[in-house]
Amino acid sequence: MKIDFNEAAELLKGMDNILILTHRNPDGDTLGSGFALLRALRNMGKRARLINADPIPGKYAYLYEGTGEDDFTEDFVVSVDVAERKLLGDSLGEKYGDRVDLAIDHHETSRYFAKKTYCESDSASCCEIIYLLIKAMGIPVTKEIADCIYTGCSTDTGCFKYSNVTPRTHRIAAELIEAGADHSRINVRMFDTKSMGDFMLQKMCLDTLEIFAGGKAAMISVTKSMLSQCDVDKSALDAIKPLTRQIDGVEIGITVKEENDGKAGISVRTGESVDAAAICAHFGGGGHVRAAGCEVKGTVEEAREMIKKYITEVRS
Amino acid sequence: MKIDFNEAAELLKGMDNILILTHRNPDGDTLGSGFALLRALRNMGKRARLINADPIPGKYAYLYEGTGEDDFTEDFVVSVDVAERKLLGDSLGEKYGDRVDLAIDHHETSRYFAKKTYCESDSASCCEIIYLLIKAMGIPVTKEIADCIYTGCSTDTGCFKYSNVTPRTHRIAAELIEAGADHSRINVRMFDTKSMGDFMLQKMCLDTLEIFAGGKAAMISVTKSMLSQCDVDKSALDAIKPLTRQIDGVEIGITVKEENDGKAGISVRTGESVDAAAICAHFGGGGHVRAAGCEVKGTVEEAREMIKKYITEVRS
Repeated sequence: MKIDFNEAAELLKGMDNILILTHRNPDGDTLGSGFALLRALRNMGKRARLINADPIPGKYAYLYEGTGEDDFTEDFVVSVDVAERKLLGDSLGEKYGDRVDLAIDHHETSRYFAKKTYCESDSASCCEIIYLLIKAMGIPVTKEIADCIYTGCSTDTGCFKYSNVTPRTHRIAAELIEAGADHSRINVRMFDTKSMGDFMLQKMCLDTLEIFAGGKAAMISVTKSMLSQCDVDKSALDAIKPLTRQIDGVEIGITVKEENDGKAGISVRTGESVDAAAICAHFGGGGHVRAAGCEVKGTVEEAREMIKKYITEVRS
Repeated sequence: MKIDFNEAAELLKGMDNILILTHRNPDGDTLGSGFALLRALRNMGKRARLINADPIPGKYAYLYEGTGEDDFTEDFVVSVDVAERKLLGDSLGEKYGDRVDLAIDHHETSRYFAKKTYCESDSASCCEIIYLLIKAMGIPVTKEIADCIYTGCSTDTGCFKYSNVTPRTHRIAAELIEAGADHSRINVRMFDTKSMGDFMLQKMCLDTLEIFAGGKAAMISVTKSMLSQCDVDKSALDAIKPLTRQIDGVEIGITVKEENDGKAGISVRTGESVDAAAICAHFGGGGHVRAAGCEVKGTVEEAREMIKKYITEVRS
């Protein structure tokens, strides 16, 4: 059932012994939302606990610093930034998937899986919504809460860079800085710090860079051996895929990745003049106009040749 | 003479035939300030023209799009984001250095070289000040003006990332988006686009990466031949110098650069636990606690050995 903002605030205000769930592979927005809410509820004298399916990456440790444990049997289950049941992760999804009383979310793809859902799909982050709920419940925004909320506002917008930023995003950021959010230190931690493995992977990928189609296309590739040499997993590719499109003039950025069973995955990102989904459809894949993917049979080198030939002959 | 905000607004409002000067090697803040002011003054029916010492980089073309020429003999000279005479550049400094009627600035190092200066050193950008002046003069903030102001607000803060950001910065950004600023497109252009030369230089620099002092120090180097191979000038180093410190755990980031006459320049950037100025002072240089530099006799390789030895033996 969809509910409105005031109902969500009243519901939270009336409940106690609250279990907060974040999405699997937790990021700054789901964790910032969860720990801001946990801190706010506890500051109201309630008992609250947060659990999630995967370990929390070390860079987010400040979000829960000082919160300690709180042992109780939950009377109310809230999810934050979780669009659908399966995103709770396998074990939590099985255990709590049917028992979420309130889902607070901002995804367009929200599945309304909880008993009640408050979803604002034009909010840049879930943290924006949590911030407004905390204020509506009359709970003071402490420095620690401000740090949590700022983290989600900043990470879900690429530090206020993306098109999802609204005037409200900036106004909330202003209030958070006034409430004591350690904004620049959080940003250094989130945006200017790379693990040695991510750094080395980027370096190795750049060594595979090839520019073609008169400078309109750029391609890099990643093998399983590169990932293991750098001691990183597939999530490190998130930072790799945007690289090629950053080169001035490149309209088609391609990342080829070695997959299992003699296959290669091809990720295509394009500028305004090229349809990424159409390119990938040629190889049996699909996706969005600006970002799409496909999988082909063959080695990384064969996949590179294949897509290069197609783009050179057909798309330029 | 220092003047206050209202005096600056009144002064601009009363003048016509206005020449606007930006600083040499113009960046997003000086150009955003200059073209926002030019557009605002013209929208008031005044004549205004902007000149600067160096070519305007192509990525800033949208700032002046549609402004055209305006030929007149200036009655009033305003500089924006210029802290001292020499930053006008040699020829403009000689011609206008003593003739600047009003300097609008935000640098702590402002030298008050103009007849009248309005300087707010805690403003994150000069564009923030220009925005408030335009509003105080009662001139509507058009989409084009909003694009100019947003550019300076964003570029001088690393897209709202740095510690110079204040609540006011975010509130102004909110108003600019409401006025139609094409925020995300401007940010892609400013932050996610690199020239092929910058991209290749980064790749070549990463090939020289060396980590030492147990992971606390990282060093890269740049030769003159690398700069010419990538067809870039020294300004490309601005994007190179922060690279080493981005590696998780690195407290001392070092960039060694080949200079003329058999010398090498060493740039040192440090985290909170290390004094960059003290390291550089050992080699006869100096600077700030977090960013300093020095010059030594020798090849790039010799300079690398020298600083590595010093840091390994003394600083770790």
